[in-house]
Amino acid sequence: MEPSHSLFSRIRLATPADVPRIYKLLHQQAVFSHLTYDFSATESSLSATLFKYAPFTSVTIFLLEVSPNPLTPSDRVIHLEHPLTDPERETFISDKVNDVTVVGFVSFFPNYSSFLAKHGFCIEDLFVRECYRRKGFGRMLLSAVAKQAVKMGYGKVEWAVIDWNDNAIKFYEEMGAQVVDHKWRLWWLSSAALEKLGE
Amino acid sequence: MEPSHSLFSRIRLATPADVPRIYKLLHQQAVFSHLTYDFSATESSLSATLFKYAPFTSVTIFLLEVSPNPLTPSDRVIHLEHPLTDPERETFISDKVNDVTVVGFVSFFPNYSSFLAKHGFCIEDLFVRECYRRKGFGRMLLSAVAKQAVKMGYGKVEWAVIDWNDNAIKFYEEMGAQVVDHKWRLWWLSSAALEKLGE
Repeated sequence: MEPSHSLFSRIRLATPADVPRIYKLLHQQAVFSHLTYDFSATESSLSATLFKYAPFTSVTIFLLEVSPNPLTPSDRVIHLEHPLTDPERETFISDKVNDVTVVGFVSFFPNYSSFLAKHGFCIEDLFVRECYRRKGFGRMLLSAVAKQAVKMGYGKVEWAVIDWNDNAIKFYEEMGAQVVDHKWRLWWLSSAALEKLGE
Repeated sequence: MEPSHSLFSRIRLATPADVPRIYKLLHQQAVFSHLTYDFSATESSLSATLFKYAPFTSVTIFLLEVSPNPLTPSDRVIHLEHPLTDPERETFISDKVNDVTVVGFVSFFPNYSSFLAKHGFCIEDLFVRECYRRKGFGRMLLSAVAKQAVKMGYGKVEWAVIDWNDNAIKFYEEMGAQVVDHKWRLWWLSSAALEKLGE
């Protein structure tokens, strides 16, 4: 029998030094979601907007990292049958000394439900890099946001899912989440229409 | 020919003193939307949550008020063919001395689009009391949020609409808004499922 390979994982708040890796994760997510036509973020626009407010009061990013070495006393240990090959490891190294690699992230911001008179969180992105999927990392990220919401006494965690993404739908159902109501549609005002109405 | 009847209108930020009227507007909206089963706000829970942060950095409410008398130099004047009868006028008076009545409101909070690397606003509620509908008040409220978004350099204003509300859909189309994409579905984790995942 092959010996087990272990990965130690932690979740931490992103910092401005993580912007290059956040940019790459976002771009991979846009490609995966067939939404590159809607992608205009740059490292510089992310730097200018992501860290303007205190964590949890505005957009907040949790990064999920792994290392072959223990990182914190509360690391979660993942046992793999086979060693994992990460073709983009160099790109996503966040700490060379300790051999730490970013494998995914979740971004979220506070929302408010007036009918509940409670704040909550809205998840904007949840993404795990391809070679790290189906190992429980997505659950760790979603559960970190749920934990923060419970800690703050918030009522709900919400997000939008595109309806062809069967793996995401299956994953969210396994997490106990549900579709709010199929009758709701998202609307927006942007670019010219926004400028016109805002004149 | 009957003389024209004029109403002067203004939009202002809600204050804690408005909570009784906000509560009533929210409840009327829940009844109108057939969502009373999802309504648990109280005056006290609204007071505790609505004014915790500076306007525009968290949930923010604009109230739309009318008066038979001029209110501010920038009042919008509405000319009506017939005088308007408001059966709930007493309930919604916000300033007895100047004869000011609340006719509607919009609540919204900042969101964030990571693909644009821009903040925006998400509208939670937009409601005009029944006897004041079809007079342009809804447009004034939506346009006040659009104006604030443009002023702050924000990229989008977004909201959810329930698909049986034909009047709302027609109204938003007239405002230049569009459905983001019919493929997106809203999901949530709440109550027991949230607690469980957040443990």
